[in-house]
Amino acid sequence: MSNPAAQKTAITPRRDEDFPEWYQQVVRAAELAEPSDVRGCMVIRPWGYGVWENMQRQLDAMFRATGHRNAYFPLFIPLSYFAKEAEHVEGFAKECAVVTHTRLEVGADGKMKPASALSEPLVVRPTSETIIGATYAKWVQSYRDLPILINQWANVVRWEMRPRLFLRTTEFLWQEGHTVHETEAEARAETQQMVDVYAKFAREHCALPVFIGEKSDSERFPGAVQTLTIEAMVQDRKAIQAGTSHFLGQNFARASGIQFQSREGKQEYGWTTSWGMTTRMVGTVVMMHGDDDGLVLPPRIAPTQIVILPITPKDETRARVLEACDALQLQLRGKQFGDAPIEVEVDRRDLGGGVKNWEWIKKGVPIRVEIGPRDLETSSVAVSRRDQPVKSKDSMSIQEFAAVAPELLMSIQQNLYDRAKKFQEENTRVIESKKDFYDFFTAKNSNKPEIHGGFALAHWDGSREVEEQIKKDLKVTIRVIPSGESEPGKCIFTGQPSARRVVWAKSY
Amino acid sequence: MSNPAAQKTAITPRRDEDFPEWYQQVVRAAELAEPSDVRGCMVIRPWGYGVWENMQRQLDAMFRATGHRNAYFPLFIPLSYFAKEAEHVEGFAKECAVVTHTRLEVGADGKMKPASALSEPLVVRPTSETIIGATYAKWVQSYRDLPILINQWANVVRWEMRPRLFLRTTEFLWQEGHTVHETEAEARAETQQMVDVYAKFAREHCALPVFIGEKSDSERFPGAVQTLTIEAMVQDRKAIQAGTSHFLGQNFARASGIQFQSREGKQEYGWTTSWGMTTRMVGTVVMMHGDDDGLVLPPRIAPTQIVILPITPKDETRARVLEACDALQLQLRGKQFGDAPIEVEVDRRDLGGGVKNWEWIKKGVPIRVEIGPRDLETSSVAVSRRDQPVKSKDSMSIQEFAAVAPELLMSIQQNLYDRAKKFQEENTRVIESKKDFYDFFTAKNSNKPEIHGGFALAHWDGSREVEEQIKKDLKVTIRVIPSGESEPGKCIFTGQPSARRVVWAKSY
Repeated sequence: MSNPAAQKTAITPRRDEDFPEWYQQVVRAAELAEPSDVRGCMVIRPWGYGVWENMQRQLDAMFRATGHRNAYFPLFIPLSYFAKEAEHVEGFAKECAVVTHTRLEVGADGKMKPASALSEPLVVRPTSETIIGATYAKWVQSYRDLPILINQWANVVRWEMRPRLFLRTTEFLWQEGHTVHETEAEARAETQQMVDVYAKFAREHCALPVFIGEKSDSERFPGAVQTLTIEAMVQDRKAIQAGTSHFLGQNFARASGIQFQSREGKQEYGWTTSWGMTTRMVGTVVMMHGDDDGLVLPPRIAPTQIVILPITPKDETRARVLEACDALQLQLRGKQFGDAPIEVEVDRRDLGGGVKNWEWIKKGVPIRVEIGPRDLETSSVAVSRRDQPVKSKDSMSIQEFAAVAPELLMSIQQNLYDRAKKFQEENTRVIESKKDFYDFFTAKNSNKPEIHGGFALAHWDGSREVEEQIKKDLKVTIRVIPSGESEPGKCIFTGQPSARRVVWAKSY
Repeated sequence: MSNPAAQKTAITPRRDEDFPEWYQQVVRAAELAEPSDVRGCMVIRPWGYGVWENMQRQLDAMFRATGHRNAYFPLFIPLSYFAKEAEHVEGFAKECAVVTHTRLEVGADGKMKPASALSEPLVVRPTSETIIGATYAKWVQSYRDLPILINQWANVVRWEMRPRLFLRTTEFLWQEGHTVHETEAEARAETQQMVDVYAKFAREHCALPVFIGEKSDSERFPGAVQTLTIEAMVQDRKAIQAGTSHFLGQNFARASGIQFQSREGKQEYGWTTSWGMTTRMVGTVVMMHGDDDGLVLPPRIAPTQIVILPITPKDETRARVLEACDALQLQLRGKQFGDAPIEVEVDRRDLGGGVKNWEWIKKGVPIRVEIGPRDLETSSVAVSRRDQPVKSKDSMSIQEFAAVAPELLMSIQQNLYDRAKKFQEENTRVIESKKDFYDFFTAKNSNKPEIHGGFALAHWDGSREVEEQIKKDLKVTIRVIPSGESEPGKCIFTGQPSARRVVWAKSY
């Protein structure tokens, strides 16, 4: 049965028709990114990169406020360094890109080819624990040199066989924090602090409700003792890991030789952590907030928060309309939202008003403001919020709008979070039996077969066997073992004792 | 003969003893950067990266103000793409790092080795004209899609046989602008605009006086029609290229297939430009402003502009001193300098006052302020400017200092520029004969054999033969053909007609 209303959406297919394809179409329509001709590598277009720059700036301020400074380490890691930590190299071996040659020269067939073989191959960093560890080993001599609290903004490469824009790409952008501490307790506190920073950033800046907690052993970072994570649920009810913080114990310190003289005069290995968030966050925002008309951006991370659309049907009123638009822009730019002045753009392009309006809808700009000749007569503007139906408009006086713009933006930010939180709650269920669990993830009574159950909170006995069975049967894994007080119970699969319910879901 | 005064400098050797070694020592002592274990790749430490971050933020604002937006393109370039522009691939062939394999596996000897050969090798970008061109070819259909005005902040790799921190490294950080225009005139105007942006940035932000102009054919960017450059003179009187802007004509548009339908309905190739500035700028600042006690930073790019050093000889006054320091910090942070609030740090570390003071001297922080118990009694502070002799201190009231701090910083900024400008002028000479030219670059009457002549302004007939002879004889090249009105004359080497004097120098 056809649905006439649905046919009018700007994005085809709709979310409930084909979520993965809808996602690709939203990313394209918003001009966030596109695949490049290099397999698995994407081009991040200005609008997408603008979102990432906002994320960077805001996250960076949070890192600075917690005492971290930025630095930069080499892109290449000598193979022998990379192999120092056994679990680590094993975990990343399949994903490495390797530089084996330098120089190009013309071959016998007249084509350019690699010329000089390196004596030791170089791995293009998939993550930098080993190369940064080698440097820290030189810096750290005494407990007085600790802690080292450094972050790096960089590109990394993990060869990807099934790439998807932002979610899984061979090259991606990220930040990686790498710290060294005198004691285990300090390193554990740092690991917790940084996952809390990620949670705050996800919630308050990206409007993403998240679960915080620990990964099970099978999902731990290769070489880590403990991995903490924030996990979001997007609109197809799958989980997505949005940031991780690893307590590395003394594993990497031992591998890299990070040793120091302790307060007691003994030689000890440092305690290290690492933590990262990536351009995947942009994809997570798309999947969480987007609708059938395209992207919906939380105001705090939108490159343009308010777009002013001049309506200029007649040449004789054009100049006055544009003047009013510019005046409003100037006024709005003088106002603060979040950590920076409001970003306002006047779209002066000589295109039809409808075309321009739909472009901005698809790009997810939080507020659109139309000003036409008739509005000038009444000193009013027509205001549309991207979190409301696309055709809805509020008429208000220019002065009133200028006064309330920051609150409007904040209200959109809050509404997106509340909506996402409600969605997450509606699709998170405490499950007490194996049968209910299997039903939750396989239910056929839904007429939306692509919709997965959501988050199941269920007791688990801590065994890897159970995890593997569930993964095999349902493609469901433990996404996070929530922090907080334990609530003992019994594993719904084995009846063995369980310390707390854990979060199970299908995932990206 | 020993020089007792000179022995007291914080850096050994002094500039006039061994400039290259002095440079390395300043970079190390200021904790700007250090070599990594990956040949040719450096580690940029927090203080050095902080300088780069300031450069980035300020330059980025200038790019935005001229209509550019940031984006991100792949690190890897398929070899066949890279080879599309013949001069280009030839120019970079010797410097390419090449990814030939993915995956690691355990070899017969039990060691990890590269496992899967790629069907087409990937060049790690040494610059991105070809990979960005391939994307622009998809974006550009009509003149309505032009101009494209995009910049990228990225790492690039050019294999370096004789690396030097910041000046020549295998991996370096930079920005690369890549634009496409409808007409030759627009593209040429963009090329000029961006070199002017670089000149303004160098002069006003980095306190570097520069010559602006064109490169001779032999120094052009491989594949460009014209390369504009800014060229600075550092303290050993050598030239250093500090930023370049290339007019690429239709060469890369042709190679990448960037075609559009013109206003007249014809298919035409776009006119492209590219322009870049790198982490080499950090090294240039070191070589221009540093002295025998270490780094001297222009206030606008210093990560910390004012450091407050609490003098706390006695426990009983410690708390009050620290309180006064914190209060002053808070007051200063409320003041603007350049585009941001003043960056102020209170160094509370439990080290000797002399040790701390010398650390900050070597790091080149523009203003050091000491507050001790006796200062509290008189509500005064002892202020030291890094552009003055290190032992000089000005006593002034706390309130006065807080009031004049922004002007003090601006005065240091201006003084560094004036000093550098004077040095450049003193070492730039109009030369009218071949003999004087050779004498200028080989004079033996100086007791400083490591000192090179400086900049020679001399007429040149435009021939490559002359350039090659001079390079062979003196290691001197044409650094820049200055812009502006021509002043015809005769080549000092051949007597042939010359349109203007050009700048000759030894160079980095």
